[in-house]
Amino acid sequence: MVTAKVWVLKKHFEGFPKPSDFDLKKIELPSLQNGELLLESVFLSVDPYMRPYSQRDMKEGDIMIGTQVARIVESKNPAFAVGAFVVANSGWRSHFISDGKGLHLLPSSWPESLPKSLALGTVGMPGLTAYFGLFEVCKMKPGETVLVNAAAGAVGSVVGQLAKIGGCKVVGCAGSDDKVAYLKKLGFDEAFNYKTVTSLDEALSKASPDGYDCFFDNVGGEFSSVAINHMKKHGRIAVCGAISQYNDSVPQKGPYVQIPMIFKELRMEGFIVTRWNNRREEGQKALLKWVLEVRREGVIFFTVYLHHGLPLCKGGSLVVAGEVRSWYDFLLSDVIFEPFEDTQTILNMPDAFHFTETCDTSLWS
Amino acid sequence: MVTAKVWVLKKHFEGFPKPSDFDLKKIELPSLQNGELLLESVFLSVDPYMRPYSQRDMKEGDIMIGTQVARIVESKNPAFAVGAFVVANSGWRSHFISDGKGLHLLPSSWPESLPKSLALGTVGMPGLTAYFGLFEVCKMKPGETVLVNAAAGAVGSVVGQLAKIGGCKVVGCAGSDDKVAYLKKLGFDEAFNYKTVTSLDEALSKASPDGYDCFFDNVGGEFSSVAINHMKKHGRIAVCGAISQYNDSVPQKGPYVQIPMIFKELRMEGFIVTRWNNRREEGQKALLKWVLEVRREGVIFFTVYLHHGLPLCKGGSLVVAGEVRSWYDFLLSDVIFEPFEDTQTILNMPDAFHFTETCDTSLWS
Repeated sequence: MVTAKVWVLKKHFEGFPKPSDFDLKKIELPSLQNGELLLESVFLSVDPYMRPYSQRDMKEGDIMIGTQVARIVESKNPAFAVGAFVVANSGWRSHFISDGKGLHLLPSSWPESLPKSLALGTVGMPGLTAYFGLFEVCKMKPGETVLVNAAAGAVGSVVGQLAKIGGCKVVGCAGSDDKVAYLKKLGFDEAFNYKTVTSLDEALSKASPDGYDCFFDNVGGEFSSVAINHMKKHGRIAVCGAISQYNDSVPQKGPYVQIPMIFKELRMEGFIVTRWNNRREEGQKALLKWVLEVRREGVIFFTVYLHHGLPLCKGGSLVVAGEVRSWYDFLLSDVIFEPFEDTQTILNMPDAFHFTETCDTSLWS
Repeated sequence: MVTAKVWVLKKHFEGFPKPSDFDLKKIELPSLQNGELLLESVFLSVDPYMRPYSQRDMKEGDIMIGTQVARIVESKNPAFAVGAFVVANSGWRSHFISDGKGLHLLPSSWPESLPKSLALGTVGMPGLTAYFGLFEVCKMKPGETVLVNAAAGAVGSVVGQLAKIGGCKVVGCAGSDDKVAYLKKLGFDEAFNYKTVTSLDEALSKASPDGYDCFFDNVGGEFSSVAINHMKKHGRIAVCGAISQYNDSVPQKGPYVQIPMIFKELRMEGFIVTRWNNRREEGQKALLKWVLEVRREGVIFFTVYLHHGLPLCKGGSLVVAGEVRSWYDFLLSDVIFEPFEDTQTILNMPDAFHFTETCDTSLWS
């Protein structure tokens, strides 16, 4: 008999999420039926999208939504071998039973040396979001200028790097000087801290006096209202996220978009990465290739996600780079961890970072 | 020596345009040089777009922008014969000299019986706007549901009819009961008066409970903010105009668009018909065909534009359907004239409507 720990949304967020909005519960899992498998989460993602989606799709008492990298602990399904790793979309649970539907085995080309947490980051949903958003929504072309906000985030950091690889000039902005330094390290041509510039309008003009062909928008709200006036004729805006509005109890207002949309003949498109579920393999293959090959030349970096099982067992805290952080911080905005330049650095880090590699179910107790 | 009368923008509009914002001036035109031609305007267009464009592109003292159907009075250019008619973009002038650049001869297939004013309406810029907006921006497909606002206007009325011809369900709204009756006569499946419905939200739900695939937006502002929530997943919004905002001295605000854009993966695109200048012939040919052929089956109607030369010579008034109307009314919103169901009706109307056919330069004096 396995006891799963699950985090339940006790109360819908009002403004910022609070620890008291959640409840930790235990659920006894039944024995496996034929065709089923038992999985243990080894990495859980905590992403900004959870705020609007929980509001829209969940009722109080539901288990919190989210994706995970999970290890197959027991299997009565011949398609899934014990010990293999999958990406699942089963919410914040330590253990769960699946019939295999909707599980994605890690690609067979995934190298042993590459942290599996990347399957929730650069080579997972956020990376695929950057990939399809840039190539299919923005229809980015070499030589263009690309603007991305929340640029140090899981999606933004990949957007900027893919755009550089694709021969574009890239301008990024983020909310702290550390993140700006990180963006420059990633190869962004221009980067600024939107919280400290005297005028966003001026900062955007200065970073690209001719304007922007593509704008990968993760933020929405006021930023977007200023940025729209900096688009070039026939510019494309990929609306990926709206983190500036996820904590609003009353919707914010801004200038109507129609007049700039018409005068500059702009195209704006909202998108969700699941649209390209049938091309997931293609995207993941491309991202893996970049991470493994291009990275060697110092071009690609990645942001490591380490939302591992600890929040489910250690009083809601995560040990990150030696610092204990409240796990629900990650729901607040585009929090990122220390970036690492290559796999070796990661492999040299303390054990706490390699939960997947040394996954020990006793940690769940 | 020919004296041209020209209307000058004396003062940029503040709020609604006023007669005192304009000045009538006389300009002596020089003799023609080789390659030049002298033209006389026989129809002038007065369109809502002039409000934002004058603000953006004109300085006080400039001749008012606008297109016209003009007759060639004298020619030293072998490509243009005296007596032929062209569409020009020379602003509010009774006469002007051109080197032929930018002039569009009326298609050779234009029947004698068809009023040339249509070259400024259904078979001109507004018709082409509807054509390219629907087919290229909305990418309308048979069986879809199309929403259009300002539906009784020069563009909207063509949008609705083309969408019907294309096998769609069409919902239109306009600002008076007369216009709504007109829309129903045009074959719109549903039509309502947005000024008298108790709730726009409810009216949109009632007209199409399943929502809308395409939204051809001529209005912007609050209407668009409500309509965006009625779009189906992957809906397309063609942003053609924003008449609700053209008279604002301070920009209005509304809810940010990003969250509905993302959740429904909507595509919104602003456009200006000049983008398809290289396909003008194709569009005009298709529109002419519809006007001449499909109309016979009672499917297509058209709105006749009769902004002819009179405003330049009769104290700023237009004689329309026997009623004297202040010509600057036409700048205020989507004013339309009485619709006519076939060419014969038009041909049977009083002479005042056929200024092109019986163009007499003495009227300019």
